[in-house]
Amino acid sequence: MINKLVNKIRQTQAPVVVGLDPMMSYIPEHITKKAFAEFGETLEGAAEAVWQYNKGIVDATYDLIPAVKPQIAMYEQFGIPGLAAFQKTVQYCKEKDLVVIGDVKRGDIGSTSAAYAAAHLGKVSVGSQLHTAFDEDFATVNPYLGSDGVKPFIEVCRQENKGIFVLVKTSNPSSGEFQDKVVDGKPLYEWVGKMVDEWSREHIGEEYSYVGAVVGATYPEMGKVLREIMPKSYILVPGYGAQGGSAEGLKPYFNKDGLGAIVNSSRGIICAYKQEQYAEFGEQNYADASRQAVLDMIEDINSIF
Amino acid sequence: MINKLVNKIRQTQAPVVVGLDPMMSYIPEHITKKAFAEFGETLEGAAEAVWQYNKGIVDATYDLIPAVKPQIAMYEQFGIPGLAAFQKTVQYCKEKDLVVIGDVKRGDIGSTSAAYAAAHLGKVSVGSQLHTAFDEDFATVNPYLGSDGVKPFIEVCRQENKGIFVLVKTSNPSSGEFQDKVVDGKPLYEWVGKMVDEWSREHIGEEYSYVGAVVGATYPEMGKVLREIMPKSYILVPGYGAQGGSAEGLKPYFNKDGLGAIVNSSRGIICAYKQEQYAEFGEQNYADASRQAVLDMIEDINSIF
Repeated sequence: MINKLVNKIRQTQAPVVVGLDPMMSYIPEHITKKAFAEFGETLEGAAEAVWQYNKGIVDATYDLIPAVKPQIAMYEQFGIPGLAAFQKTVQYCKEKDLVVIGDVKRGDIGSTSAAYAAAHLGKVSVGSQLHTAFDEDFATVNPYLGSDGVKPFIEVCRQENKGIFVLVKTSNPSSGEFQDKVVDGKPLYEWVGKMVDEWSREHIGEEYSYVGAVVGATYPEMGKVLREIMPKSYILVPGYGAQGGSAEGLKPYFNKDGLGAIVNSSRGIICAYKQEQYAEFGEQNYADASRQAVLDMIEDINSIF
Repeated sequence: MINKLVNKIRQTQAPVVVGLDPMMSYIPEHITKKAFAEFGETLEGAAEAVWQYNKGIVDATYDLIPAVKPQIAMYEQFGIPGLAAFQKTVQYCKEKDLVVIGDVKRGDIGSTSAAYAAAHLGKVSVGSQLHTAFDEDFATVNPYLGSDGVKPFIEVCRQENKGIFVLVKTSNPSSGEFQDKVVDGKPLYEWVGKMVDEWSREHIGEEYSYVGAVVGATYPEMGKVLREIMPKSYILVPGYGAQGGSAEGLKPYFNKDGLGAIVNSSRGIICAYKQEQYAEFGEQNYADASRQAVLDMIEDINSIF
């Protein structure tokens, strides 16, 4: 799957992932109105609105981008109907030949991590049958519990030709509280990065490893160090745009081959129509606004090469 | 909710939580056979078997214990039907007046953490309506992303009278890889513990805070230090029994009032019938074996006071 991701990035010339993190407040009224008319102001109604909203954005952008990253929390809050909308979104994006990165940030130990890996990337046995549950292509994984928590994911990736991105340095303001703590002269995130590097070298696709890392766009100087520590890992970079990361600041996340990083934007794309810059599209044409925002993001990022 | 937990621990004289972490291999054949006859060897069939298995254990033990801890990964692997079985289990346990600790180990940032908090502990707005999704009483939370990730959970707990247990030192063998790294002379888990202590002091129920911590039974010397660092936090202790933690080793996790800790056992209780000690019950009577295992665990733990 890392090979497919790299190839699609080359084809589209767009190291860009669209974060499908729908908030109810983002969804245009014509969509919620229709969904509530059919299902009421229920979890089912919310889930239907989320799905229709996503579908509009995917239909308008899928030919421009290699990948999407649905954030499961935004679906989980709507319970079972919300998670069904997550599943439907994952399936639909795969039908559109997009690489789907499940932003699930799961992490536990042993058989529990194995169950999460089965849920999101693998298969589960029921009697003599094998089934898939959510079946994303990649998942994000939290490393706080150590390699006991990460290795079951890697094992499933190896079997199923999938991949993970391990949280190394996140984009949020308080990410430093624990991640930046200095251990033997180096911040913790570097130690985590070293571990990701070990895992990644043992699990290579063609050019890159299917064990990647998450490093926030908001800390480019740390991105530079981590790029060097983990040369074989793809870096998933959140925090561009709405969270304050700039294109110029993204340079250090890429390797000399122009590859090695994929930059996420969520709100900046899916809620583009609410920004002054794209207001002319109007709420009805929110998906066209998203398309234009993707085109502008690709141009912005490619300007650094 | 922390007050309810403390009161129920006092009433039952049992600082014990039963981990509802069903694996298909644990479930007696008469249950899977019936479920597969009705739903086939499908995700629905697996979910039905899990639910019936749980119901048997809850019916046989609910009067002895204050709380249960369903591990969501074990349900998530069966997709939407599995998560519906999780929800049904949570609801059923609440009807039995048990405190339900959702072992979800979620953690993200800002509005995403807020969405997880809404999913598991709070409410979500849909139009003019408020709905609950999974509605556990407590959730476990991963702190790697710092206070941006934890505070949205605390805020929902404050509003909804719920609680969290923050992962501080986990019970698994590799937990030390990052958690034990020494920062300014102290291991990282102590720094996390100090942060939990700050949060907990600001969010007190009657005697204890509704911001608790997870500290594994497998590291009693670390439990002792963390007990002192976080006097107001309840400690959820996994790793007793099957993972190797002993009753004697649990002493340091408790305060002088005999409170302050609640000890989890999963496999040791729910799969008791497969142990030599309880084999006489037979597979058909797996729930009676679980009841006896709970009685034995309570006696074992109370022997340290």
